[in-house]
Amino acid sequence: MDQPKPPPRPLRADAERNRKLILETAYEAFADEGVDISLAEIARRAGVGFATVQRRFPTKDALVTEVVRGQLAHIGQDPAQGLDAWQAFTAPILECCEHQVKEPGLAGSIAQILSSASEPSVREPILDALVPLVTRAQADGALRDDVCVDDVLLILKANAGVIANSPGKEAEASRRFVALALRSLRP
Amino acid sequence: MDQPKPPPRPLRADAERNRKLILETAYEAFADEGVDISLAEIARRAGVGFATVQRRFPTKDALVTEVVRGQLAHIGQDPAQGLDAWQAFTAPILECCEHQVKEPGLAGSIAQILSSASEPSVREPILDALVPLVTRAQADGALRDDVCVDDVLLILKANAGVIANSPGKEAEASRRFVALALRSLRP
Repeated sequence: MDQPKPPPRPLRADAERNRKLILETAYEAFADEGVDISLAEIARRAGVGFATVQRRFPTKDALVTEVVRGQLAHIGQDPAQGLDAWQAFTAPILECCEHQVKEPGLAGSIAQILSSASEPSVREPILDALVPLVTRAQADGALRDDVCVDDVLLILKANAGVIANSPGKEAEASRRFVALALRSLRP
Repeated sequence: MDQPKPPPRPLRADAERNRKLILETAYEAFADEGVDISLAEIARRAGVGFATVQRRFPTKDALVTEVVRGQLAHIGQDPAQGLDAWQAFTAPILECCEHQVKEPGLAGSIAQILSSASEPSVREPILDALVPLVTRAQADGALRDDVCVDDVLLILKANAGVIANSPGKEAEASRRFVALALRSLRP
């Protein structure tokens, strides 16, 4: 009972193939149609058994989180050179917002997972990248002193609403909104 | 065929009672649980026949629109006295945003119906009230010159996203967001 959990074993090649297939299928389905699609339907589209999906992803939330993790893994990890403090601060936000436009069915989940303390493995690396960018932009006088990372997460939640409620004009509405929202963070 | 449609007859008392009952039931259901609830379920909860609901509201959209119309009918119709140009401009926006918080299941529909040219009877009276407030606030130097009514509608769409993606903290998140968003409209 008190034994520490053994580290996860690497998956066998066919299990790894199935896992990748499920994630790719889920990405397409969620991004286009939203996260209401059932695990059973994902299994059917991926051409694998329902039990196979359930073994890897016991709940829909687990699968959605893993899909979002894959999409956002690169954000803030490889900051572009030559940006001023404001550009460096806004770059990862703009990247997240672009993911939301490209994957409208996942736009709300992206915001929620980044805001959720229960998903630290997705949230923490991005927040760890963002916090020093906030500090630097504030030190530089490019960002209001009372802005915190939660305000950035609010923008992502808000952008999900703009996308969901602008049928046929998602990209244009989101672009206008994000420009407005970022302006509100200026001193 | 070319006859003009006769004006709608006033409803008989029992028909009017049913209509009110359906609208009240739909309001409770949509506000709390969202607009995915079926017309059949609304009929069941209201204790009226499905055919009765369908006769008054042939589609779910028609029923949602009518519920939203009832909620927003007063907005901008009775402007408070003694407000400065900025307060007068923000008052109806804050009222709409408060409706979204109070009726989270309708938050997206409120934004969409106000944005939709296909619902002029809900949209136009509110926009007619808002446009002179925009003009006055701009003349007063309280509002950026490049702000248009569509930006206000973007805030409502965004607020719906903040509410939908802040489970358990809807009111607090919305309040913070709306303050940020309005700030972005200041010169």
